[in-house]
Amino acid sequence: VPRRLRDVGEHEWINLLSRRLGGRSVAGVLIGPGDDAAVVRIGGAVALLTTDTLVEGVHFRDGWLAPAALGRRAFRVNASDIAAMGGRPISALVALEVQPTMAVNRLDAIMRGFVSDARRHGVALVGGNVTRGPHFAITVSMTGIASARVVRRRGARAGDQVFVTGSLGAMGLAVRGRLAGRRTELPTVPYRVDAAVALAAVASAMIDVSDGLVQDLGHVCRASRVAARIEAGRVPVAPACRRALGAGAAAFAATAGEDYELCFTVPPRRLPALDRLRRRLRCRVTRIGTIEAGRPIVRMVDARGRPLVLRHRGFDHLRAR
Amino acid sequence: VPRRLRDVGEHEWINLLSRRLGGRSVAGVLIGPGDDAAVVRIGGAVALLTTDTLVEGVHFRDGWLAPAALGRRAFRVNASDIAAMGGRPISALVALEVQPTMAVNRLDAIMRGFVSDARRHGVALVGGNVTRGPHFAITVSMTGIASARVVRRRGARAGDQVFVTGSLGAMGLAVRGRLAGRRTELPTVPYRVDAAVALAAVASAMIDVSDGLVQDLGHVCRASRVAARIEAGRVPVAPACRRALGAGAAAFAATAGEDYELCFTVPPRRLPALDRLRRRLRCRVTRIGTIEAGRPIVRMVDARGRPLVLRHRGFDHLRAR
Repeated sequence: VPRRLRDVGEHEWINLLSRRLGGRSVAGVLIGPGDDAAVVRIGGAVALLTTDTLVEGVHFRDGWLAPAALGRRAFRVNASDIAAMGGRPISALVALEVQPTMAVNRLDAIMRGFVSDARRHGVALVGGNVTRGPHFAITVSMTGIASARVVRRRGARAGDQVFVTGSLGAMGLAVRGRLAGRRTELPTVPYRVDAAVALAAVASAMIDVSDGLVQDLGHVCRASRVAARIEAGRVPVAPACRRALGAGAAAFAATAGEDYELCFTVPPRRLPALDRLRRRLRCRVTRIGTIEAGRPIVRMVDARGRPLVLRHRGFDHLRAR
Repeated sequence: VPRRLRDVGEHEWINLLSRRLGGRSVAGVLIGPGDDAAVVRIGGAVALLTTDTLVEGVHFRDGWLAPAALGRRAFRVNASDIAAMGGRPISALVALEVQPTMAVNRLDAIMRGFVSDARRHGVALVGGNVTRGPHFAITVSMTGIASARVVRRRGARAGDQVFVTGSLGAMGLAVRGRLAGRRTELPTVPYRVDAAVALAAVASAMIDVSDGLVQDLGHVCRASRVAARIEAGRVPVAPACRRALGAGAAAFAATAGEDYELCFTVPPRRLPALDRLRRRLRCRVTRIGTIEAGRPIVRMVDARGRPLVLRHRGFDHLRAR
């Protein structure tokens, strides 16, 4: 019986592939697979490159998002990957899969949503591709410019403090509502590029929270060869999520995905610099835990330091049923 | 009744969108939507950017291509877009849509096919994304470096001669065979990057033949505001296609897609330079016609100069049934 992708899982398959590819370094590739974005030397410049897909029926269902909101979301989830490296997006390509029966107005509105949000943030749609497909999917590839410091997943050290921007759980709650048949509005993905560029000066590691905080911080731990302890009581839970879920809200918020906040670590010596930055960030920044020595595991503990048992750690595209 | 994409067609929808986007120029974008690749200034460098998707059930069906051949094809169709601008690809991202039931071995073999062909040509796979989807699709985005001269679609002038590399019709014939239930082998996409970089010194306009010569040369004509006349007897028809179709082979080869040869125009004063280049190109280059003044129409004529009536002009993803 051949092994199926669902037996391996998304993240493990990517790890296996990255390890196989990582063996040989290629001239001009400063950072290859395994981070939020690649870093490539092009002529004399250093570019950040990333790609991400939204698939109808997987990331959202028909009717969950207004067309313009869907376009904006496609833009922002990609900008989030550039931001997570401390960079600034500058251009995007859009590859569309569409059904020939799709209304022209709907696709136009999706693209208007994409382009208007991109322009507002100084990013140009420079090209793309359209192909027929059995369902709607939008794959964006984005190019960015690196800050003076590129922030990777691998820089966290024991003793660093763990922070997260904004709040978590709102998207997970909205998806749960939609799946239960309620017309919950899906929240807008935050745009954290300015914050990320500022944070690049102090962060030792950074990642965007796309598949769930515990799992994504786990990627940081594996890349950095450290462990992390998150204090459940410190996790900034979105108000709607807190109201709906009460005591279970922190565990839900820490494992639900698609909030696209930034999770980052700061060495003790740079904490004063972070404090000086706070005013400029224009978003909440919350300390949620600590990096520790040890096997790359993320533990979540309650107010007394007792470990919480999490039913799952985050989203895996290939294991999800 | 809302207008559907199939009523507008792929190329017309892209034209409409490009025109809407083209109005405002954005700093750093040297060439935006509407060419084979975008040209963007990144820091001090000039990068070529393109994206293209292969969808199972649309571009190929299960079993038509060995996994490694599929990966190689995904690499080469994107390299072809960079080549068509006279550029050289340097890095690629791969966004995958996969079914969780897909065999790990198959996806590994697809990626091995991609990576080994890319490495052989000096191109690095630097990252990507995996998402669950209802079918297999692979979207590649590729970054390249421009030659001294970027060759666009819009540079053709009346009096220029029209050329095409290699031969046409082999892929169209293979697809026709497969659709009829025969086990015809799909030809490998040619790798024309070295030829393209050399041709950039003499070509006034260039495009890759992805959707059919007549239609793709039509894009050159529209962008350049000229007409083109192709002599049917000069079209380099793939031998298998000539054998199978006889008298109708030229019209078939000129409208079947996916050969990924280069079609380019050369001003009369540069024809001697093209002749000097020929030895270096390592592929056949055939003169097939002439650029003329007039409305942007591609006419195909027989040996006596009489126009051939073409049943269709090329592939349109959204009009195809």
